[in-house]
Amino acid sequence: MQEFTKFPTKTGRRSLSRSISQSSTDSYSSAASYTDSSDDEVSPREKQQTNSKGSSNFCVKNIKQAEFGRREIEIAEQDMSALISLRKRAQGEKPLAGAKIVGCTHITAQTAVLIETLCALGAQCRWSACNIYSTQNEVAAALAEAGVAVFAWKGESEDDFWWCIDRCVSTDGWQPNMILDDGGDLTHWVYKKYPNVFKKIRGIVEESVTGVHRLYQLSKAGKLCVPAMNVNDSVTKQKFDNLYCCRESILDGLKRTTDVMFGGKQVVVCGYGEVGKGCCAALKALGAIVYITEIDPICALQACMDGFRVVKLNEVIRQVDVVITCTGNKNVVTREHLDRMKNSCIVCNMGHSNTEIDVTSLRTPELTWERVRSQVDHVIWPDGKRVVLLAEGRLLNLSCSTVPTFVLSITATTQALALIELYNAPEGRYKQDVYLLPKKMDEYVASLHLPSFDAHLTELTDDQAKYLGLNKNGPFKPNYYR
Amino acid sequence: MQEFTKFPTKTGRRSLSRSISQSSTDSYSSAASYTDSSDDEVSPREKQQTNSKGSSNFCVKNIKQAEFGRREIEIAEQDMSALISLRKRAQGEKPLAGAKIVGCTHITAQTAVLIETLCALGAQCRWSACNIYSTQNEVAAALAEAGVAVFAWKGESEDDFWWCIDRCVSTDGWQPNMILDDGGDLTHWVYKKYPNVFKKIRGIVEESVTGVHRLYQLSKAGKLCVPAMNVNDSVTKQKFDNLYCCRESILDGLKRTTDVMFGGKQVVVCGYGEVGKGCCAALKALGAIVYITEIDPICALQACMDGFRVVKLNEVIRQVDVVITCTGNKNVVTREHLDRMKNSCIVCNMGHSNTEIDVTSLRTPELTWERVRSQVDHVIWPDGKRVVLLAEGRLLNLSCSTVPTFVLSITATTQALALIELYNAPEGRYKQDVYLLPKKMDEYVASLHLPSFDAHLTELTDDQAKYLGLNKNGPFKPNYYR
Amino acid sequence: MQEFTKFPTKTGRRSLSRSISQSSTDSYSSAASYTDSSDDEVSPREKQQTNSKGSSNFCVKNIKQAEFGRREIEIAEQDMSALISLRKRAQGEKPLAGAKIVGCTHITAQTAVLIETLCALGAQCRWSACNIYSTQNEVAAALAEAGVAVFAWKGESEDDFWWCIDRCVSTDGWQPNMILDDGGDLTHWVYKKYPNVFKKIRGIVEESVTGVHRLYQLSKAGKLCVPAMNVNDSVTKQKFDNLYCCRESILDGLKRTTDVMFGGKQVVVCGYGEVGKGCCAALKALGAIVYITEIDPICALQACMDGFRVVKLNEVIRQVDVVITCTGNKNVVTREHLDRMKNSCIVCNMGHSNTEIDVTSLRTPELTWERVRSQVDHVIWPDGKRVVLLAEGRLLNLSCSTVPTFVLSITATTQALALIELYNAPEGRYKQDVYLLPKKMDEYVASLHLPSFDAHLTELTDDQAKYLGLNKNGPFKPNYYR
Amino acid sequence: MQEFTKFPTKTGRRSLSRSISQSSTDSYSSAASYTDSSDDEVSPREKQQTNSKGSSNFCVKNIKQAEFGRREIEIAEQDMSALISLRKRAQGEKPLAGAKIVGCTHITAQTAVLIETLCALGAQCRWSACNIYSTQNEVAAALAEAGVAVFAWKGESEDDFWWCIDRCVSTDGWQPNMILDDGGDLTHWVYKKYPNVFKKIRGIVEESVTGVHRLYQLSKAGKLCVPAMNVNDSVTKQKFDNLYCCRESILDGLKRTTDVMFGGKQVVVCGYGEVGKGCCAALKALGAIVYITEIDPICALQACMDGFRVVKLNEVIRQVDVVITCTGNKNVVTREHLDRMKNSCIVCNMGHSNTEIDVTSLRTPELTWERVRSQVDHVIWPDGKRVVLLAEGRLLNLSCSTVPTFVLSITATTQALALIELYNAPEGRYKQDVYLLPKKMDEYVASLHLPSFDAHLTELTDDQAKYLGLNKNGPFKPNYYR
Repeated sequence: MQEFTKFPTKTGRRSLSRSISQSSTDSYSSAASYTDSSDDEVSPREKQQTNSKGSSNFCVKNIKQAEFGRREIEIAEQDMSALISLRKRAQGEKPLAGAKIVGCTHITAQTAVLIETLCALGAQCRWSACNIYSTQNEVAAALAEAGVAVFAWKGESEDDFWWCIDRCVSTDGWQPNMILDDGGDLTHWVYKKYPNVFKKIRGIVEESVTGVHRLYQLSKAGKLCVPAMNVNDSVTKQKFDNLYCCRESILDGLKRTTDVMFGGKQVVVCGYGEVGKGCCAALKALGAIVYITEIDPICALQACMDGFRVVKLNEVIRQVDVVITCTGNKNVVTREHLDRMKNSCIVCNMGHSNTEIDVTSLRTPELTWERVRSQVDHVIWPDGKRVVLLAEGRLLNLSCSTVPTFVLSITATTQALALIELYNAPEGRYKQDVYLLPKKMDEYVASLHLPSFDAHLTELTDDQAKYLGLNKNGPFKPNYYR
Repeated sequence: MQEFTKFPTKTGRRSLSRSISQSSTDSYSSAASYTDSSDDEVSPREKQQTNSKGSSNFCVKNIKQAEFGRREIEIAEQDMSALISLRKRAQGEKPLAGAKIVGCTHITAQTAVLIETLCALGAQCRWSACNIYSTQNEVAAALAEAGVAVFAWKGESEDDFWWCIDRCVSTDGWQPNMILDDGGDLTHWVYKKYPNVFKKIRGIVEESVTGVHRLYQLSKAGKLCVPAMNVNDSVTKQKFDNLYCCRESILDGLKRTTDVMFGGKQVVVCGYGEVGKGCCAALKALGAIVYITEIDPICALQACMDGFRVVKLNEVIRQVDVVITCTGNKNVVTREHLDRMKNSCIVCNMGHSNTEIDVTSLRTPELTWERVRSQVDHVIWPDGKRVVLLAEGRLLNLSCSTVPTFVLSITATTQALALIELYNAPEGRYKQDVYLLPKKMDEYVASLHLPSFDAHLTELTDDQAKYLGLNKNGPFKPNYYR
Repeated sequence: MQEFTKFPTKTGRRSLSRSISQSSTDSYSSAASYTDSSDDEVSPREKQQTNSKGSSNFCVKNIKQAEFGRREIEIAEQDMSALISLRKRAQGEKPLAGAKIVGCTHITAQTAVLIETLCALGAQCRWSACNIYSTQNEVAAALAEAGVAVFAWKGESEDDFWWCIDRCVSTDGWQPNMILDDGGDLTHWVYKKYPNVFKKIRGIVEESVTGVHRLYQLSKAGKLCVPAMNVNDSVTKQKFDNLYCCRESILDGLKRTTDVMFGGKQVVVCGYGEVGKGCCAALKALGAIVYITEIDPICALQACMDGFRVVKLNEVIRQVDVVITCTGNKNVVTREHLDRMKNSCIVCNMGHSNTEIDVTSLRTPELTWERVRSQVDHVIWPDGKRVVLLAEGRLLNLSCSTVPTFVLSITATTQALALIELYNAPEGRYKQDVYLLPKKMDEYVASLHLPSFDAHLTELTDDQAKYLGLNKNGPFKPNYYR
Repeated sequence: MQEFTKFPTKTGRRSLSRSISQSSTDSYSSAASYTDSSDDEVSPREKQQTNSKGSSNFCVKNIKQAEFGRREIEIAEQDMSALISLRKRAQGEKPLAGAKIVGCTHITAQTAVLIETLCALGAQCRWSACNIYSTQNEVAAALAEAGVAVFAWKGESEDDFWWCIDRCVSTDGWQPNMILDDGGDLTHWVYKKYPNVFKKIRGIVEESVTGVHRLYQLSKAGKLCVPAMNVNDSVTKQKFDNLYCCRESILDGLKRTTDVMFGGKQVVVCGYGEVGKGCCAALKALGAIVYITEIDPICALQACMDGFRVVKLNEVIRQVDVVITCTGNKNVVTREHLDRMKNSCIVCNMGHSNTEIDVTSLRTPELTWERVRSQVDHVIWPDGKRVVLLAEGRLLNLSCSTVPTFVLSITATTQALALIELYNAPEGRYKQDVYLLPKKMDEYVASLHLPSFDAHLTELTDDQAKYLGLNKNGPFKPNYYR
């Protein structure tokens, strides 16, 4: 595992992150067509730009794209009613009044809705991008036009990347007291470069697997002097990022890249965790015949009861039409497996790691690679057999499908609530440690999303609450309940 | 909640227990027809019976029924291959050699397979029934014929009940060192009457919700001087008892009692926990239109994503054809709801508590009760409206459907492994407390049941195990993973 | 095929008929417990009975059972609202005024609702049973008490059977002008014994496969001098008898006989017609893994697209847990297949023919048959292997499950409408031939059943009807549309 | 309906056609990126081009694109193994030796596989495009390079269109004796301009609804002097084009255009025919809550049994998130409905007609149209409410999703077999009329596609065939069976 003190290279690494908001990044299928492709080549750092109110406290590609970006934000708002409702509920009391939040996330229309919600709740925000490719320039322009100090553009160099972060943290007369991070780079920068600032931070909210891992390392090393909230592992987010979201994105990703017909296809899914369960449910529902491989007997037994045959990969590798990995493990699909696949077999990865398929083993002289579409390679064996490899083994749903705004809304709402909680918590509630979102707040996030479905909760009577030994307002389940 | 020190009345209480093996008890549909109904009326306690080997160390209804009972045991063995395979794997080493187990469970063909497995592994067993009605007399006879000291018959009096327990515990030259209990009565009896025996017990294995609850009370009171294993809450058992088993039994229970056609029926399911999820999946699959009520926003959000409308009961009570409760709560369906139901509406309970439907409120003079079939009452309003109440609001799947032997196999295997674990654990591994089955043993139970499905597990390579930071033999998930 | 002129033996033959109302006949699981088992042994033909109005124009087992039968009829009425609504709609005009209907069907609570509907619409009815075992004596008593001339009881001799039919047809001062038949025996009797009566019949309505076959033979021979309506092949009835009804009854039949758990079971279904499609949908939905055998490539392709592997029986016979036939063919499961099945494999038939499984081949000395439950035989091979044979290869859903009243309602409504149509048709609309129910009436039957589901049809505007070239009131599809 | 004798305008009309191969036409999502966008502006008619063998008997955009087109054809061949296998089976005998086929279809990679199959079977082919936009220029180039006389390019003018057709029909020393048409334009041209050629045609194969309609008109008018085969209505094609294909394309079309999350969405589907059934199955499977509107009570009853509430559109229009039409009717969604929809409601059409949604009613001054993506318009009400209209009410699956090659393979195979049948039929088998494909050939098409699924048909024994009264090689069902 990488050391915390080593600066990671920007390119490639972040694709490890299960930070789902990244999806809009390199997707060829991102529906909105942005206009920055043939832009001028001047670096934003060298441009002089001001917004319509005369402020130049930002650095974006082109402030003139603000109007287009504003429309994208407005469209996103329509599917993020939980945040909008949070704005309304909390606006009177301004629970983030005084908060100075420095943020580092993907900069998309959905993030913009989050940032503007934080501002509406009283916070001051400065923002950079957590990925050098993922910024929607128009959205950044719209934020800048609205007065947010945003430093980000699509296609930053590594040097740009750290420059932007630094510009957020270090500015005259403004010192952050909250951090919202996605990947841990911002946290790391503040920790390393501005230890005095770091000590005065009231809370860190971290969303990604990688960033959370780094926080736990820091904590274990006794160097985390700030309470941090791990929002990656909240139940609501997990179920949506994994089970429900993958149920939809596996179909979308396969269809957009290969136009494959699902009916009657034989598919093997490696791994029957939440991601695997989501993939299998969708594929079975559309008429595919699905086989499972598993290492864990409990998940294997669940697969049996759900109507799937549990096999070793070798048993079915010659007959299947599609191979999908979602194990979190490495080298699950080996060169040996790839050698045995039948002609036209599709291979892709839905799991955490981009080494689940041993793609490296395919980069040998006897095999020919042919890029037939964006994200689609034919790897051709000497006898003419072709294996269809998607996204070079990287996460299919990040590369080849989009993520519904509704899912991002759950993440963003969780982030906002975590910031409010940490910022307002009475002295002593949180120590210098990494915390999971309290069950009750997780339930609150869920409840904010129910109106989208016109769902009506039942309330406990006093008598029932007493019988069950519960508070009428929750939490309704123990923390470990999933 | 009842006090631990008060002896409960036998009749009725145990129907509260989620001890699923009870199902065969009072089910009118129990497929095998037993012959004891018109037997002689002499109490077994007053009979002189010996088995074919001359032993009279037992007390059953009629030893002559042994042959019929043996066939039932053999049929059960065919679906309990996990226990049979456990017998084979562990038989050489006799891991229970020296164990003197006193047991108190439902006495059915499936339990018999468990008891005979324990004997095959080296244990000596004495057994009584945990319910005055649930004993299959033929099976008890077959056990007695095979040399097990069993004291149980169908239709015991309360006095008989405790007499049988006492006969198991207190016998010359034999002192139990392990307890297998279902409900806590045996444990309580030993604790109260034979404190010196109790202190020397090496472990208690308890299966029921009620019994586990009593153990935790004892532990909290500082009076539990023996390590105890709560096998009720193991993942494997929970999923099978709840999600998977209810998915099947809701259909079976409704069909056997009412012959209702599922297609197109409007159904409201109160509660979307594991039991509710199982019921809804089955009903939706067979063409019913299902509504959910929930108090917990997270479960409600899951219901939405699974395609169910989440409503308050009042919104749909006038239109639904079937009402099913599975909340664990009380008074979920009130008299007011019942007054509003349409003619022929079916009402039943799949949840833990038999007070989920306020049946008491229906016992008023203006309503007429008509027993139309076993377990089926028509409650008739003055205007002629009929509501079809199943099992008087008690658990539908215990009263009106059978439980597949395979599910019972999981429970029985878990019990056997818990006994082996406690009996063989090195000094100090378990203290005087209540434990959950270790994850790894839970996985082992699952793995023993995979051959029934011809399922083949994948094994980690050394390299992969290292990458994941796992032992190649498990456990594969953290304890809290479900 | 049997000749029309030969009288069939009553016992056994009718089990060939796909006349679904037979189901209540020999089902061990018929939920209501009737009281006639230990009745006196005097033949009803020798009893003197009068109903409360002093009439003795009937012959039933015991007129005193009328009250119990009336309650059964009332319960049935609750699920047959289409007939009740037909009574209401047509009652003013009495469309069957003057009709003298002689009927021969199973006599059950559902048939009683039909008969009383016909009476309410103005008809006079005389009724006998089409099966010597299927009469519900209490229902027959209730009909007799209500003034219907019914001649039927459970357990008739062959001689009784024809005597009852004759008593319906031949009575002083009453000559039938309509026939409602199920199986063709009544029609045959009138044709043979009372040719002059036969010539004056205005219409025959026939429900069963067998009866329809005999009518076509008669027509082909030029001897059918009466218009006849084949109600067996109406779309609505077919879909319900086959696809939708089997979707439910396959689960019910397997569960009641074997308590098998469906989850994870490997099942092969022979035949993917409507019955097979219904079985497969249900089994897949409950977590079984289903294989299909087919002879027809189009049905096979549908099976593929629906997510089932299409195999030859030999490919999977060693591994499956359940074998289900629904082909209409014979010897689909041969002794060779049975020899290869694994221990505990369940074999049953959902198809038309009771020769789909070659049961005869199992009646050889080396195999032992053991009746373990009603309708369940273990066939035991010399090496101890057991195959579980259900209903001796006869139709599972007639023998081991009940049929929802709602399905019977569709059949009964179709019969009533067919009678009204034939009785009121203008001269010349129907010739001396066998007709299918007109599409429009089939649609009317469907529409009468929609209120049960609270379903609301959309009506075409004049403009839309013109655009589509349809009458606003239907028919909406061509006759061949399914 | 348009008169047969009037030349239709090319632009727009063909989009009415349910000719599914059109899908690749105007789809923004067509995966392969073609290179002709910025090509030179010279009309192909004015270019001098020769292929590598020196022939110039063709007219395409750019012969140099042949190599790219060849690769597309090769990829298509991988999913059209039925045609490839037909090539192999029939190649020895050359069943089309002497056939001179003039064709007019969409010119895509899949059509190219068909054309080259016809050539391999002995035919000579000349080909033009049935749609001025649908030609894949690279594929046309590849065909020309391979020696096929193809006259077609993307972006023909109306004059070009007829010029191309004429060049196919009229050439020195070559006179067509077979027609393969899609839309009826080629047939019409030959009928009108070359009546002497028309009379000598041995058969016409027509695929589209429109073309079939025109043939029936011609036949009714007594002017069809050639046997014609309607391949549009073969069972196999219908099921694939409608039920199975829509089951997949409804998800794909909605996802590519709107990124909507399906889970929990309330959807109303207007029409429960095959298309509606396919849409509903997929949406329900992915967690949507689906309502149905229907005019036909039989389809409505099926919807009920399949678990959908049947409503009038007005009952749910205010609450649904998505409205989908598939009725074949017009004005199913009216302005009144559109006025009542909630903000962000998505409206689209999967049905035959592009007037199912009254889009015209939305083109009024008070409403603002905003094109937010290709094929996606926001229609904005004065109060800010937006309705999301897809493909301007045209067929969603033709405009916004692709069609799997496998589906096109079924169509193409049917066309090839129809040509073989008509060309080789003995004198007198086919008269001057429009025929459906014989059941047996439909079964043959299905059987050719089974190997793709590794499906194995069971064969009847002689004995079984006799019992069923069937030929062992089929046909297995009556013609009307679906």
